[in-house]
Amino acid sequence: MEEIKSVQNPKVKSWSQLNNKKGRDISKTYLIEGIKLIEEAIQSNQEIEAILIDDEKGMPIDIKLLLENQKKNIPIFSVTAAIVDKLSDMATPQGVLAVVKQQQYSLEEIVSKEYSFLLLLDEIQDPGNLGAIIRSADAAGIEAIFLGNGTVDLYNSKVIRSAMGSLFHIPIVSVDLNQLIPLLQQDGFQVIGTSPYADKAYFDIDFSLKTALLLGNESRGLSEERKQQVTEMVKIPLMGQAESLNVTMATTVILYERVRQLLIVR
Amino acid sequence: MEEIKSVQNPKVKSWSQLNNKKGRDISKTYLIEGIKLIEEAIQSNQEIEAILIDDEKGMPIDIKLLLENQKKNIPIFSVTAAIVDKLSDMATPQGVLAVVKQQQYSLEEIVSKEYSFLLLLDEIQDPGNLGAIIRSADAAGIEAIFLGNGTVDLYNSKVIRSAMGSLFHIPIVSVDLNQLIPLLQQDGFQVIGTSPYADKAYFDIDFSLKTALLLGNESRGLSEERKQQVTEMVKIPLMGQAESLNVTMATTVILYERVRQLLIVR
Repeated sequence: MEEIKSVQNPKVKSWSQLNNKKGRDISKTYLIEGIKLIEEAIQSNQEIEAILIDDEKGMPIDIKLLLENQKKNIPIFSVTAAIVDKLSDMATPQGVLAVVKQQQYSLEEIVSKEYSFLLLLDEIQDPGNLGAIIRSADAAGIEAIFLGNGTVDLYNSKVIRSAMGSLFHIPIVSVDLNQLIPLLQQDGFQVIGTSPYADKAYFDIDFSLKTALLLGNESRGLSEERKQQVTEMVKIPLMGQAESLNVTMATTVILYERVRQLLIVR
Repeated sequence: MEEIKSVQNPKVKSWSQLNNKKGRDISKTYLIEGIKLIEEAIQSNQEIEAILIDDEKGMPIDIKLLLENQKKNIPIFSVTAAIVDKLSDMATPQGVLAVVKQQQYSLEEIVSKEYSFLLLLDEIQDPGNLGAIIRSADAAGIEAIFLGNGTVDLYNSKVIRSAMGSLFHIPIVSVDLNQLIPLLQQDGFQVIGTSPYADKAYFDIDFSLKTALLLGNESRGLSEERKQQVTEMVKIPLMGQAESLNVTMATTVILYERVRQLLIVR
């Protein structure tokens, strides 16, 4: 275990670059924080470049055991509380962080797989929403998630925190949706968009077909261009006086309608 | 319009008490903030005790028109930016706040109504979750919401903000669930609780029956006591690797299963 005492240490400086998107884009890595999330990353076979431990708090026993059992050879650094503070974005840091390699997928690689249930997100801008959608999508058995241009950075710390490890369970790929949507349709996918003004309700969709569900921006919804591209538009009926459902709720409701249709026919 | 220039003014002091639960409990009022929310409160006929306007920003035109049209006689105070800052909990205040009277319902009053779809929340602790659940419940046509002991204060500013006006659309009542649940069951309600370990799935419930849906704490779920009281426990099947669904998502998925059942049989 290497010890680092100074916040001026070059390694600390390069890690602190990961607190902004530019730094993450260059190094193709990102920071995660907290015992539970690091355990999840190890168990999901993420490529971890470094684990940083607050020297006063020491190595959490759960992570220690996991590393021993999995015989991972991950560089571990003992750092000061001041270094943890510099890197952490939590009010009360748990004193353990990790540098994780971003997953890289090419569009070709993904399209070659035999998927049948995909989620496309266009211009989702709130990191808490993106994280929560990833968690719900994982729960509902989504096989891959595609992020269109203008979507908040996947490796934003708030996205990672609210995804609660689901980030490690599903391939998540940034793409040009203008390219992807026609490819999916050629491949037999129905691409389902949402709008409060659609005639058809989400529960009238046959989810036994290969489906890509497309959700748009929190306040503007899907652009006109996207609405033209999709196979079908659906609405989520509003029964009370609320003007709309939050995008995370809307996504989860539709994802779970597919779960229901799959399980109920058994 | 009365002008108030000093943050030491007794009215300002009493309004600032509304930023904590104790002050709200004593005065039975609460603060709301922002143009949209105040418009919603006026339109939903909430009893508004005062509207405070930042004297530099002036009265927002939308609120002005609404007050004129509705011939409301609400006291309006012109206050300084410093007073707004003292009362606001937003990073960039819109410069308009209102003091609203809490709705008061007795248990008897509520139980006497001909409801058929209720939501019971026990020990929900995150204000953002409570607000989002209220918004979803409104969208799904819930008729009343009951908050058990240990639930976060309904009038917490984060609850109000994330409920996005739905707070004004549904009666929301703090009760002792130990009393309420047997009353509802005597009245012919099925009380449905949730647990990841239940045998039955939420979509196997017949929502044409009078239903009260009961959700528990974010991390602990329902207490053993509650599980004993309910008519039936249901699970939300998890298809991927996520360990759980967020309580807000879980609530919304089940609420919308009732919407689906109601609309699909037509």
